[in-house]
Amino acid sequence: MTRAIESTAAAARKAAGAVAILTTKQKNAVLLDLAARIDQSRTTILRANQQDLDAATANGVTGPKLKRLTLSADSIGQMVEGLRQIANLPDPIGGVTKDYAAPSGLAVRKQRCPIGVIMMIYEARPNVTIDAFALCFKAGNACILKGGREALHSNEILATLARDALGAAGIPAEALTLLTTSDRETVKRLLAMEQYIDLVIPRGGTELIRFVHEHARIPTVQHFHGVCHIYVDKDVDIDKAVHVCATAKTSAPATCNAAEAVLVHESVADAFVPMLARRLQTDGVEIHGDARICSLAPNAKPATDDDWGHEYLDLIVAMKVVSSLDAAIEHIHQYGSNHTEAILTTNETAAAEFTQRVQSSCVLVNASTRFNDGFQLGLGAEIGISTSKIHAYGPMGLEELTTQRYVVQGDWHTR
Amino acid sequence: MTRAIESTAAAARKAAGAVAILTTKQKNAVLLDLAARIDQSRTTILRANQQDLDAATANGVTGPKLKRLTLSADSIGQMVEGLRQIANLPDPIGGVTKDYAAPSGLAVRKQRCPIGVIMMIYEARPNVTIDAFALCFKAGNACILKGGREALHSNEILATLARDALGAAGIPAEALTLLTTSDRETVKRLLAMEQYIDLVIPRGGTELIRFVHEHARIPTVQHFHGVCHIYVDKDVDIDKAVHVCATAKTSAPATCNAAEAVLVHESVADAFVPMLARRLQTDGVEIHGDARICSLAPNAKPATDDDWGHEYLDLIVAMKVVSSLDAAIEHIHQYGSNHTEAILTTNETAAAEFTQRVQSSCVLVNASTRFNDGFQLGLGAEIGISTSKIHAYGPMGLEELTTQRYVVQGDWHTR
Repeated sequence: MTRAIESTAAAARKAAGAVAILTTKQKNAVLLDLAARIDQSRTTILRANQQDLDAATANGVTGPKLKRLTLSADSIGQMVEGLRQIANLPDPIGGVTKDYAAPSGLAVRKQRCPIGVIMMIYEARPNVTIDAFALCFKAGNACILKGGREALHSNEILATLARDALGAAGIPAEALTLLTTSDRETVKRLLAMEQYIDLVIPRGGTELIRFVHEHARIPTVQHFHGVCHIYVDKDVDIDKAVHVCATAKTSAPATCNAAEAVLVHESVADAFVPMLARRLQTDGVEIHGDARICSLAPNAKPATDDDWGHEYLDLIVAMKVVSSLDAAIEHIHQYGSNHTEAILTTNETAAAEFTQRVQSSCVLVNASTRFNDGFQLGLGAEIGISTSKIHAYGPMGLEELTTQRYVVQGDWHTR
Repeated sequence: MTRAIESTAAAARKAAGAVAILTTKQKNAVLLDLAARIDQSRTTILRANQQDLDAATANGVTGPKLKRLTLSADSIGQMVEGLRQIANLPDPIGGVTKDYAAPSGLAVRKQRCPIGVIMMIYEARPNVTIDAFALCFKAGNACILKGGREALHSNEILATLARDALGAAGIPAEALTLLTTSDRETVKRLLAMEQYIDLVIPRGGTELIRFVHEHARIPTVQHFHGVCHIYVDKDVDIDKAVHVCATAKTSAPATCNAAEAVLVHESVADAFVPMLARRLQTDGVEIHGDARICSLAPNAKPATDDDWGHEYLDLIVAMKVVSSLDAAIEHIHQYGSNHTEAILTTNETAAAEFTQRVQSSCVLVNASTRFNDGFQLGLGAEIGISTSKIHAYGPMGLEELTTQRYVVQGDWHTR
């Protein structure tokens, strides 16, 4: 088994060498061909997905988890459209980020190049299989994908289509390896194969991230949880602030950029809290508040220590009254997850202090935390949102799946 | 002990928050003050260094290792000058790398921000203590430094001067922590403290890198060895190529960017190899060559399998005749370390193919491998040369000691 998995990883490394030097045209042709193949295989894909859904239902899977596993005509259409969009995005490879003459007269260029082999471990969301392959491939990398075992049949058909598209273009199919085993020992072995794998991206729940973190000898960029805060400053447009806070929770409560906590400056608490509480009640959101919040919002439940820094991913929000901007920032430093934080204020000095002192991957002024997203920030597509500070911090698009190297032209320079 | 080391790491994290928001002026003032303090403390520093040298000599340390440990009026002068240079470099923090309006109308900036707490582990070179602190600090980070135990007294006086300069400016002295223990268990514990430390940079020998790699739960950027190749193409100016190859080995044979292997295209071997062999003999360099090299260079010793991919760090060079550019690239893929590779050629097509297919951190055309160096490439200063592809690849200067985050201005945007 060790030998089999090692030769799989070695084949991915070899394929990465081939993918690295493909032209933009070659890469886009594969992506568009794959889009067509998926479009033409809807019935087969839905049948495979039904097998996964039947097994999951038999195993008692329900709710959001079952929903994430489910493919539909709509979600297949989004996959196809996503591939076409990625084909349309600029190719990051070869992009020159610096170009200058060094003191010695050497002509120095800093250029984007592929990372190599990227391993991605994610939960049972079959669409991620196509997104992850497309982004890694366009950025010149080979990928090893390990999706949740509940999605095995769906992932297998999608990966087969992608490997067919690679093969048809004369590119080694090992540019995409789908791991079909969920054997933890095998995954552990891969996580130690630094000679073949350059980066592992775990995306998913706490347990998955911890497992990867514990066993990885290869660099990881973690896509961990989002405990996103909104601070409502003393100088604020209360109506607008209520709307931002409410929608930041309700528009997609299970996403990592949904607001999980609202901190309110004490001088606006009397006016703001009852209004937000009424709005949240209408929207079906439960409030876990400190004593002051509970005194102002009859529908609030008393918060416990566990509520601060909690990622609910549900229609629940923590609320607290703070005495100052400084207290809000301290709270965020203590309980935030470096993901996304927002300040709502009409005071430019307060906004400047907040954006300087809060060093989350995305800090927003007068906008919902829901905007920390690759599409919303104009990256075109994203593989996830990194909460690691190393390599990439925040949404990871094509550029973040590359690294940079120096290409230097000399005139027989010596030193 | 665990508790003591944990509170040390926690204090570094807290200090990092203070360093992150210092102005450029405040940071430069500390660097210049430290330069003055070092300048005025030469006697004390040299006395501490003598203690280290005496102990090392008593323990049988000799050669390059003793030389690296030795401080002198000259090397202290370089430290002082280095601090002044770093004070003069542009501050990377707050630098805007992207600035645009997102589709929603949000004003998006991508800005450089500090990484946080950087731990650096290095061998017995006291000057690295000052360089590493200065670079980390200017880039807005706190640092935890663990130098080789042979340099303990030297490092202690240097770190004390730095902490004095911090204290005099009202900045927490924990912005620089010098680990004075060499207890491996303590280091292991630190390497797992991801809640306090954001990045570890191991710089040094194979054993050190392996130790860090084995135990780190925090991200690492490795500064591993350089097995640098020069490929001499069939179209080449032989006189110039001889000079580049010889100096790439002899100008500083113990550095990571020295050439360790020369690959020669077979069609120029008859003319080139005897000339390079004579030059290397004059320069006192031993050649380990394949059969063809040995037939052309009477002073060459037969190479064994161990010679390919070997980092000599000494006046020894491996030489091999290859049948084509392709064979040279294959050899580099098999034996190179992703550090630095050069092609010597007058053929632009060959140069383009080489620079595209060889994805080392620095690839040079008609220039010595010795130019893969932060100063030579115009970074102003470097903390080392990363052979990791993640986060930074190649020389790491101030920018590479930062990360980037999004700062977004909205007009009460929701989604």
